[in-house]
Amino acid sequence: MRLGLFGYGNIGRGVEAAVRQNPDIELVAVFTRRDPATVKTRTGVPVYSAADVAKFKNDIDVMIIAGGSATDLPVLTPELAKVFNVVDSFDTHARIPEHFANVDKSASENGHIAVISGGWDPGMFSISRIYASCILPQGSFATFWGRGVSQGHSDAIRRIPGVLDARQYTVPIQEAVELARKGEAGGLTARQMHLRECYVVAEEGADKAAIEEAIKTMPNYFADYDTTVTFITAEQMKAEHSELPHGGVVICTGKTGLENEHSHTIEYRLTLDSNPEFTSGVLVSLARAAYKMNSRGITGCKTMFDIAPADLSALSAEELRAHML
Amino acid sequence: MRLGLFGYGNIGRGVEAAVRQNPDIELVAVFTRRDPATVKTRTGVPVYSAADVAKFKNDIDVMIIAGGSATDLPVLTPELAKVFNVVDSFDTHARIPEHFANVDKSASENGHIAVISGGWDPGMFSISRIYASCILPQGSFATFWGRGVSQGHSDAIRRIPGVLDARQYTVPIQEAVELARKGEAGGLTARQMHLRECYVVAEEGADKAAIEEAIKTMPNYFADYDTTVTFITAEQMKAEHSELPHGGVVICTGKTGLENEHSHTIEYRLTLDSNPEFTSGVLVSLARAAYKMNSRGITGCKTMFDIAPADLSALSAEELRAHML
Repeated sequence: MRLGLFGYGNIGRGVEAAVRQNPDIELVAVFTRRDPATVKTRTGVPVYSAADVAKFKNDIDVMIIAGGSATDLPVLTPELAKVFNVVDSFDTHARIPEHFANVDKSASENGHIAVISGGWDPGMFSISRIYASCILPQGSFATFWGRGVSQGHSDAIRRIPGVLDARQYTVPIQEAVELARKGEAGGLTARQMHLRECYVVAEEGADKAAIEEAIKTMPNYFADYDTTVTFITAEQMKAEHSELPHGGVVICTGKTGLENEHSHTIEYRLTLDSNPEFTSGVLVSLARAAYKMNSRGITGCKTMFDIAPADLSALSAEELRAHML
Repeated sequence: MRLGLFGYGNIGRGVEAAVRQNPDIELVAVFTRRDPATVKTRTGVPVYSAADVAKFKNDIDVMIIAGGSATDLPVLTPELAKVFNVVDSFDTHARIPEHFANVDKSASENGHIAVISGGWDPGMFSISRIYASCILPQGSFATFWGRGVSQGHSDAIRRIPGVLDARQYTVPIQEAVELARKGEAGGLTARQMHLRECYVVAEEGADKAAIEEAIKTMPNYFADYDTTVTFITAEQMKAEHSELPHGGVVICTGKTGLENEHSHTIEYRLTLDSNPEFTSGVLVSLARAAYKMNSRGITGCKTMFDIAPADLSALSAEELRAHML
């Protein structure tokens, strides 16, 4: 299977590495909106201009689109789905129905398949929620994120005047996790479920008290949470906060029996050294599924909910039944 | 959707209870190989003789077969798949390929779908393994069962002369679980991964030392494990060991990055008050998927690997994308 990659940031580099663990998939081209001469891939995959992408129509089986959900993917995914089978990691939960409709139209009209919102949330956490909700239909859910770096929150701090760099860790509150295991997390507020730890490099002479106040009172991002702010040096930032770990846990509890006399807990936990590399692993397996499904004549927009697990795998159905079931 | 149920033991009663949490599914008939006049369902569902099952061909959309894997299901599932769409919980891992082939033939020839090996292992644990293996294809796995009642091991103890009743708990060894989280469980033996705790009611005057010796040296079941044997009274057995809790955890670890520099851990944990009722919840959702898939013209034998998660759900694709993704 010949894979293309549109975009070469954290996710793009993750895909490049993940492909090397999947011998049935070859990464044949990277496309960039920058000057291709300035982009050098780590494994020597050729880089082409985004403007030329349509010329590769017959050379690429599936294209992974590695772009941001705010402005890139809403435009790129419908556009590229006209030419290719595509996979993206669109993660703005509230806008998924709209993105789905746009992508479905262009993929369907052109006989392609487009898998959107791949990754771990949305993605594997969603998968864990849907299975649990089918087994325990009257159950309740709680999702905890972290401890891990939220890039959106880190960016929000960086936009405050006087801030040179920032890293924000989302931290689940252990008492809330324990309540969720007992099915008692339903009434918890945002503040009761997660802490926000911020590490900030300030400009020399900046008003640190004002920065801290600006962070802690920022609506949507921090105002509803207990937030800690620690000022560090640029050297400390580089030494201690240059990685992008993340993870979290989905906990579902529910009761069974005619009298609801039995309780059950389902827990799906991810502990990830590298958020973008794990996400990339999911995207590569989705590209395989897109290829298999389109080869069977399936077109239109899909999510991980619509994909049978066997289609994600390089193993045959016989091998899966013999060794994985 | 009109559901039939063949067999009315622990799983059968679990299905009867689970259906009441799924308003789109009605349990219309229970079939038994006993005298139907002697079987009374807890919710008033009518009971018919197994001999009459074929007469219900047009009245049942999917039949859940609640029987044992040793002798019942290898015969029942291929036989009933000639007449109905069926779901079973066949769990003898080594014989799945053979069972699959037999069931596939009779289901395919008769235009039905048959979902085999539903439950949690095989079942949700298998699902957790396949997703993890697709995301981290060079990763390693460990599966721990318990703390929970193994009915096969309990039965094995009951066959020892002088034993009136027995309950065996499989207990994961915490040190091994910690090694698995670090990806270092590969070389562990059976003895290093699980303990076996046995509670035994002996006949009056029985040779307890001989019973204990017979248990601890029993090949396949106990000889390869550290096993504890505790003699209790029939009253204690009833008061403290009448439930069937189970569960366990699948742990997958793997590395990503060009230099394998990042580690990841995926953990899927079940804590179940009632093994048969949780299994029944899975089977009912599989019955729904079988109905949906057969309505789209899909026939033959399937496992959970072949079923897209959305097909398990009573929610529409739009609802799932809006609320579960």
